[in-house]
Amino acid sequence: MGAITGADFIRRLNQLDTEIWLDGKKVEGEISEHPAFKGILQTKASLYDMQHDPEIKEEMTFHSAELGEAVGISFLQPKTKEDLIKRRKASEHWARRTGGLLGRSPDYLNTALMSFASSSPLLKGRTNCFPENIQSLYEKAMKEDLSFTHSFVSPQVNRSDSYLESSEEEPIVARIVDRNEEGIIIKGARLLATQGGLTDEVLVISTPKFLLDENEAFAFSIPSDTKGLKFICRESFVGGDSLFNHPLSSRYEEMDTILVFDNVLVPWNRVFYYDNAIVAADFSFQSSFHNFTTHQVVTRQIVKSEFILGLAELLVQTINVSEYQHIQDKLSEIIIGLETMKALLEKSENDAAIDEWGVMRPDIVPLKVANNIFPKIYPRFTEIIQLIGASGMVSLPTEDAFSSPIRADLDQYLQAATKNAEGRVKIFRLAWDLTMSSFGTRQTQYERYFFGDPVRLSGRLYKAYPLDDFVKEVSDFLDLERGE
Amino acid sequence: MGAITGADFIRRLNQLDTEIWLDGKKVEGEISEHPAFKGILQTKASLYDMQHDPEIKEEMTFHSAELGEAVGISFLQPKTKEDLIKRRKASEHWARRTGGLLGRSPDYLNTALMSFASSSPLLKGRTNCFPENIQSLYEKAMKEDLSFTHSFVSPQVNRSDSYLESSEEEPIVARIVDRNEEGIIIKGARLLATQGGLTDEVLVISTPKFLLDENEAFAFSIPSDTKGLKFICRESFVGGDSLFNHPLSSRYEEMDTILVFDNVLVPWNRVFYYDNAIVAADFSFQSSFHNFTTHQVVTRQIVKSEFILGLAELLVQTINVSEYQHIQDKLSEIIIGLETMKALLEKSENDAAIDEWGVMRPDIVPLKVANNIFPKIYPRFTEIIQLIGASGMVSLPTEDAFSSPIRADLDQYLQAATKNAEGRVKIFRLAWDLTMSSFGTRQTQYERYFFGDPVRLSGRLYKAYPLDDFVKEVSDFLDLERGE
Amino acid sequence: MGAITGADFIRRLNQLDTEIWLDGKKVEGEISEHPAFKGILQTKASLYDMQHDPEIKEEMTFHSAELGEAVGISFLQPKTKEDLIKRRKASEHWARRTGGLLGRSPDYLNTALMSFASSSPLLKGRTNCFPENIQSLYEKAMKEDLSFTHSFVSPQVNRSDSYLESSEEEPIVARIVDRNEEGIIIKGARLLATQGGLTDEVLVISTPKFLLDENEAFAFSIPSDTKGLKFICRESFVGGDSLFNHPLSSRYEEMDTILVFDNVLVPWNRVFYYDNAIVAADFSFQSSFHNFTTHQVVTRQIVKSEFILGLAELLVQTINVSEYQHIQDKLSEIIIGLETMKALLEKSENDAAIDEWGVMRPDIVPLKVANNIFPKIYPRFTEIIQLIGASGMVSLPTEDAFSSPIRADLDQYLQAATKNAEGRVKIFRLAWDLTMSSFGTRQTQYERYFFGDPVRLSGRLYKAYPLDDFVKEVSDFLDLERGE
Amino acid sequence: MGAITGADFIRRLNQLDTEIWLDGKKVEGEISEHPAFKGILQTKASLYDMQHDPEIKEEMTFHSAELGEAVGISFLQPKTKEDLIKRRKASEHWARRTGGLLGRSPDYLNTALMSFASSSPLLKGRTNCFPENIQSLYEKAMKEDLSFTHSFVSPQVNRSDSYLESSEEEPIVARIVDRNEEGIIIKGARLLATQGGLTDEVLVISTPKFLLDENEAFAFSIPSDTKGLKFICRESFVGGDSLFNHPLSSRYEEMDTILVFDNVLVPWNRVFYYDNAIVAADFSFQSSFHNFTTHQVVTRQIVKSEFILGLAELLVQTINVSEYQHIQDKLSEIIIGLETMKALLEKSENDAAIDEWGVMRPDIVPLKVANNIFPKIYPRFTEIIQLIGASGMVSLPTEDAFSSPIRADLDQYLQAATKNAEGRVKIFRLAWDLTMSSFGTRQTQYERYFFGDPVRLSGRLYKAYPLDDFVKEVSDFLDLERGE
Repeated sequence: MGAITGADFIRRLNQLDTEIWLDGKKVEGEISEHPAFKGILQTKASLYDMQHDPEIKEEMTFHSAELGEAVGISFLQPKTKEDLIKRRKASEHWARRTGGLLGRSPDYLNTALMSFASSSPLLKGRTNCFPENIQSLYEKAMKEDLSFTHSFVSPQVNRSDSYLESSEEEPIVARIVDRNEEGIIIKGARLLATQGGLTDEVLVISTPKFLLDENEAFAFSIPSDTKGLKFICRESFVGGDSLFNHPLSSRYEEMDTILVFDNVLVPWNRVFYYDNAIVAADFSFQSSFHNFTTHQVVTRQIVKSEFILGLAELLVQTINVSEYQHIQDKLSEIIIGLETMKALLEKSENDAAIDEWGVMRPDIVPLKVANNIFPKIYPRFTEIIQLIGASGMVSLPTEDAFSSPIRADLDQYLQAATKNAEGRVKIFRLAWDLTMSSFGTRQTQYERYFFGDPVRLSGRLYKAYPLDDFVKEVSDFLDLERGE
Repeated sequence: MGAITGADFIRRLNQLDTEIWLDGKKVEGEISEHPAFKGILQTKASLYDMQHDPEIKEEMTFHSAELGEAVGISFLQPKTKEDLIKRRKASEHWARRTGGLLGRSPDYLNTALMSFASSSPLLKGRTNCFPENIQSLYEKAMKEDLSFTHSFVSPQVNRSDSYLESSEEEPIVARIVDRNEEGIIIKGARLLATQGGLTDEVLVISTPKFLLDENEAFAFSIPSDTKGLKFICRESFVGGDSLFNHPLSSRYEEMDTILVFDNVLVPWNRVFYYDNAIVAADFSFQSSFHNFTTHQVVTRQIVKSEFILGLAELLVQTINVSEYQHIQDKLSEIIIGLETMKALLEKSENDAAIDEWGVMRPDIVPLKVANNIFPKIYPRFTEIIQLIGASGMVSLPTEDAFSSPIRADLDQYLQAATKNAEGRVKIFRLAWDLTMSSFGTRQTQYERYFFGDPVRLSGRLYKAYPLDDFVKEVSDFLDLERGE
Repeated sequence: MGAITGADFIRRLNQLDTEIWLDGKKVEGEISEHPAFKGILQTKASLYDMQHDPEIKEEMTFHSAELGEAVGISFLQPKTKEDLIKRRKASEHWARRTGGLLGRSPDYLNTALMSFASSSPLLKGRTNCFPENIQSLYEKAMKEDLSFTHSFVSPQVNRSDSYLESSEEEPIVARIVDRNEEGIIIKGARLLATQGGLTDEVLVISTPKFLLDENEAFAFSIPSDTKGLKFICRESFVGGDSLFNHPLSSRYEEMDTILVFDNVLVPWNRVFYYDNAIVAADFSFQSSFHNFTTHQVVTRQIVKSEFILGLAELLVQTINVSEYQHIQDKLSEIIIGLETMKALLEKSENDAAIDEWGVMRPDIVPLKVANNIFPKIYPRFTEIIQLIGASGMVSLPTEDAFSSPIRADLDQYLQAATKNAEGRVKIFRLAWDLTMSSFGTRQTQYERYFFGDPVRLSGRLYKAYPLDDFVKEVSDFLDLERGE
Repeated sequence: MGAITGADFIRRLNQLDTEIWLDGKKVEGEISEHPAFKGILQTKASLYDMQHDPEIKEEMTFHSAELGEAVGISFLQPKTKEDLIKRRKASEHWARRTGGLLGRSPDYLNTALMSFASSSPLLKGRTNCFPENIQSLYEKAMKEDLSFTHSFVSPQVNRSDSYLESSEEEPIVARIVDRNEEGIIIKGARLLATQGGLTDEVLVISTPKFLLDENEAFAFSIPSDTKGLKFICRESFVGGDSLFNHPLSSRYEEMDTILVFDNVLVPWNRVFYYDNAIVAADFSFQSSFHNFTTHQVVTRQIVKSEFILGLAELLVQTINVSEYQHIQDKLSEIIIGLETMKALLEKSENDAAIDEWGVMRPDIVPLKVANNIFPKIYPRFTEIIQLIGASGMVSLPTEDAFSSPIRADLDQYLQAATKNAEGRVKIFRLAWDLTMSSFGTRQTQYERYFFGDPVRLSGRLYKAYPLDDFVKEVSDFLDLERGE
């Protein structure tokens, strides 16, 4: 089959019998018609359709010799820098369609799976490891254009450094509670599966906090409607159907869920590894996972920054404030952030190198730097939008007001320097939905925590960065002898 | 009558025939039952009831010899520092009841009116001025415990410094289009009347951008249901009735409105002054208006800061993160902000002085400093709340989920170090409603712009600050002679 | 004798045979004539002379009934708020004379000694404690107007949290190595005695890092020329004698020294306590030491901020840049910092209270807040001075150039909007000496670390701040029941 | 001749009869022996010697077919990206030798001259323009390996936007006061010629503030010892000869000078253009000057950042503080800054393009972004060094102390976790000289203002940045029709 269409995607999803809970109710009926999900599913469908758009089909897919079919490029294992750039361009296409606002467009986890497959030889011959299961899932995913959600975070009962969940008690953090002939049994919860229940499969990778918790060390993928698996949704942030009122949440609200494993059986042929904490750590740090997913993420964040820059300038033009030095300063701050991200992404491609399994990995250092920067500049970008919009952000009428008896008042009193009232309100509502609606603030929090606790990101960068040459240079400059 | 009860307030408001437009529909029926307004009106009613609460009645009201009745303290013209502190304490009571979240609790505009009356002699004998109308409205307001909204901002068609609306065209900015025997006729719009339509009266003060626009120089107060006056609402940010789900927006959503004057007649006995731009400027800068309203606002902002500090610490305890140095740093940032605001308010009281009309004015300098500080620290406070809550802010279930079949899952997987799941979710939902819901972000924008464009606030502080002594001291130190 | 004159001070200091090492040489001859010390000693002498200036004598001294003489006010134990304000005014006088640039004007350690004497009852009856020695030194100090330096910091061999110096080895951190009939013997070093060797006495207070190091727990005062005591100076930052070229370092360079104790005998009558780590900790946290010294320090920092504000405005006027919004913003930043410090100091006086020994202590909370603020704003103030001066800070000619053949060129090409060339250069050189000379940057580092590691200051503030009421208020708001 | 040696450079400079004024005295005798200049001249000589170092000669020079000689690479007009990278590598060599601390290593102005020559066709056929003079100077410079200083800044009598110097008065800003058969006559001053008097030639480019001041529009180069040309030095920041005490100022103090033109005759064959304000503006904005000089500057700043990172880590290791999260955060801040600058430089090379005169120009956008970033991060880097060094920065003994009787004390009490006392003091003195000595703070100010007023840099970036595509994308997203 290979690359699917939007209709394929919707059809398959509607056929799954996934257990999703929203606001105390189990979701019933066709999921693609549910008010909380229809917008995001239509948006995702439109991305799949781009794989068949004659104009860009060549850029969105590659011909798989094995499958004899066109396959989405995010599944491509790159062997050259050109492949890498191809991957990036396809991600840009999907990101552009959505203003970079879809944190989990399908390429994100397709990329993750591709990287797992690429690095699966790392598991060869090690205890409780099944690299062949990764490979076969990867092939199945390409063939069927499967979509995934995933979860990497454990519930945070207690964030103290010294806290340790006892394995005697009823599990909170998902762990292996049994192993039998059919597979491993998982009980407990995992946090923050974005688009949970809205994909074919759930990918779960777990690295225990302490090496001794072997039963928290596992990785697998299972269908979303596996028995005992529940998705518990937060409140929906869809503001309504009106594109005028809620131009973003009506289309891009992805939903976040808590994953509950109620003694879920993961069959052996779906297990990547289990009960091996060393392998779990190795797979996290030595596989190409971080390289490739970060490459995709940074690509998307750049497109999102461009979208914000365009919006900021549109606001500036609308109310005619480009002459103010502080406004110029704010716009240039976005430009500087954007260009910095672009330069870092490009450097990661320039410095890409073939890894031991023949795959062209983007260099991790500039990507890590980008990961330290974006969680700080994105919230600042949203603040800049708010500072440009100023008090204009808090008195925005709705679509229906424009088709009511007071339209003439709105037309007269809300007109702007370069736009009529309706245009101005559209622009300001977009600014509001991006930065001040419940949808928008969740986006901000999402970008802030995408790569984990920002406080720790900088420590990780420092610890991994090669400093010896620089220290030596200064030591030589000072003629420091041994012991000095 | 004097100080009213909540029931009095609601009854009177329901009797008004105010023209309010929300989402393209004219609001009909009892306003106190409307989903968008009932929460805030009940909250305001509860404040009025405090005036009759035996425990604090003495602190909320004073006995007016003229009226022979107890009157709300925010109407009190202070003659001593003790009076000033009395005023502050009463405002603290109202602010504490609402976490400081009610930007327009009744004391705010009562205070404004009191300051106008106190400074009304400034208008004596000047062209087109009616100080007696201020005085008589002040007396009526005390007698009936009237509530007010107001508007100080003009529509922002074009924020360029050089933009000037031509007076030939159809007005956008509200201005006087006619004067006749009955009064002045106003046409045009004013922005951002918070609680517009939810008060007895509308107070309008206008100072033209350029001195020549005499027809933009006026001040008056009229009943909310005056003919031709329309309130156009933005989208309501009430999230719903559930206190669990939306602990703040369900109670404190004040609504912002655009005021439209459709050839509104302001009768002469309600006009304070008109067609006198010099007086408009003088009244703005020489009356005690800024001193007293800022005193009230800073009092409220301090209580709000305390509420945020309490919430921040509750979050810290809930997930047990007080050991982290960066968390300590964030909490101390809130403490520093709070203590700074408190010290400045206290200094404004210590340095208070009797003005030429016998009124004890709080000193403006420390208050202006506070006005420069709060619009910067409040957004930072909300960011700190988000940074403590971290990814825990984005997967919060609703009240109904806790009374559904998945309650056991929630109880197990969302428990926290020191709270059960329900308590933890309540606390996090409060943090979310305060900083991330549409209600919360509007609060942030509101505090940011309360005193006008923050970029200009610093310029105003600098220009008004007495620097000569300091310059002289340094010049003397350097033995600078004349001309040097 | 009581309050001395400048001549008294200089004469006594020249008679001491203190061992001071500067740039590898032992300082010989009259110390008041030494190029590195004469400026600061003349400055200190001028402060003592103010005690006899008829115009302010009453504000600088109080009549001691016991001594029958006028005594410097910094020795006064305040019993009332008026006393406290008297103390503050005297400190302001001294600070004004020196632009707040003298970190260790005599009042600083006079105040410390006064607070020790006031709190000495804390030591009564406890092991190895001699409160009577504190009292007698305090009386002697008042009678002779003794001057002090002190040291609170240990050498930083290794700043790792887990590092512990073994007591087996040759001491690095000063500790008690013997006790005999005559007194205790100290060996080791202490860091950063500012004005070391330039005072009559050295006050040493030591609180061990870990409670078990009893031999690091001691307090005493000895004359600067005690046998075995050495002061090792850093490089002198006196730029030269010219007030034109180096208006600050020529007068205010205080010198920092390392104190070396080479088996120094401290006679029993000079020991306050020893070998008692609990008492050392108690004396640090329960005495009024922090209250009173911080009160003096904040007073000085406020005067310094005024000096900086005056200089900033003088720069602005000189090159005529007050119209720029970013300049206004920078000046207002200094104003905000200054007013905040003033409000906090005033609050500490308003909230002062009598302690258990009858002394009126300024409240510590606002002072602690000020201690968290100043180390951040002072470096920013210096940056603002640099940003106003801009490239004008790096091409400043010297005094001699103005009396050379090129004077006409300087007069023509360095003239400013409101000053002639000489005046302009004087002003810019002051700005440079304050923020960019080696003297100036040492001042910045000094203010940054005055109260210890800024990273820990915020932690200390948080841990000591009463938060329970605020937490309770929010808990009540949420109706959190027990366990929730 | 081509690339010279250090000895050639010194010999030629000593032969010039340049008029330099320092501290009111005219500099006499061999300039290479003068205490204020010998360090920097030896350093520059060492750079020239690198052109003949067999190991890197190939990287430092290229063979000029025209001259038949090896010429310094900074004179090379790049035709390919490889040429560009060659240029960068040679600059890196020179920068590495000096820790990036030499703001005006010879390649900076060699590059400027090369860019002028490359863009000289821009002047062809325009009024008062002599492109052939640029070309012949460029050839002469290559042949003789001439060194240059320059000046781009006018004296700042009055920085108000509206200030205009009258051309009636005695000139302050250097301008053309006469034109005669021999050339143009310049009178007035120019600011901030770094290394003024320490180079063979002075390059002067002037763009008037207002287009009408044609007599301020000129460009030329003349020998440093031209009659009537004076260099007025600021105070020297050489701390002394000891490399131990002043490891940087003893070698790298470049001196800044005011250039005074006392009716200086610039012969016609040295004039590039004059009396043509349009050409002056065009040459500034359309030539490759900014592209190439910024490329060199950013290269140097990257090396300087590496030097700072090495020093920061050396400090961290010395006192063993790498475990602290705030220290990790600070180091990572330097890493992020460094990697960002590297990525931007690389992007400018990747996106380089051939200009209309056949020269491969690095792309200006990423370089401009770097220009906006470095003036902010460099001061922060120096602050980080100070924050790591903490109080250890203010008690540093000198070299002579280590060869005095107190050496044993220093060895014992100043030892560090991983270094002996001497090593530790060397490292801290380097940190001090880089960030706190008069030399160091001048470096900070220099980097801050290298590209002009930072407040205007952001405005320039914004105004030149192509925003239309981004605005269009958002407009399309909103379906904004014309007029909306």
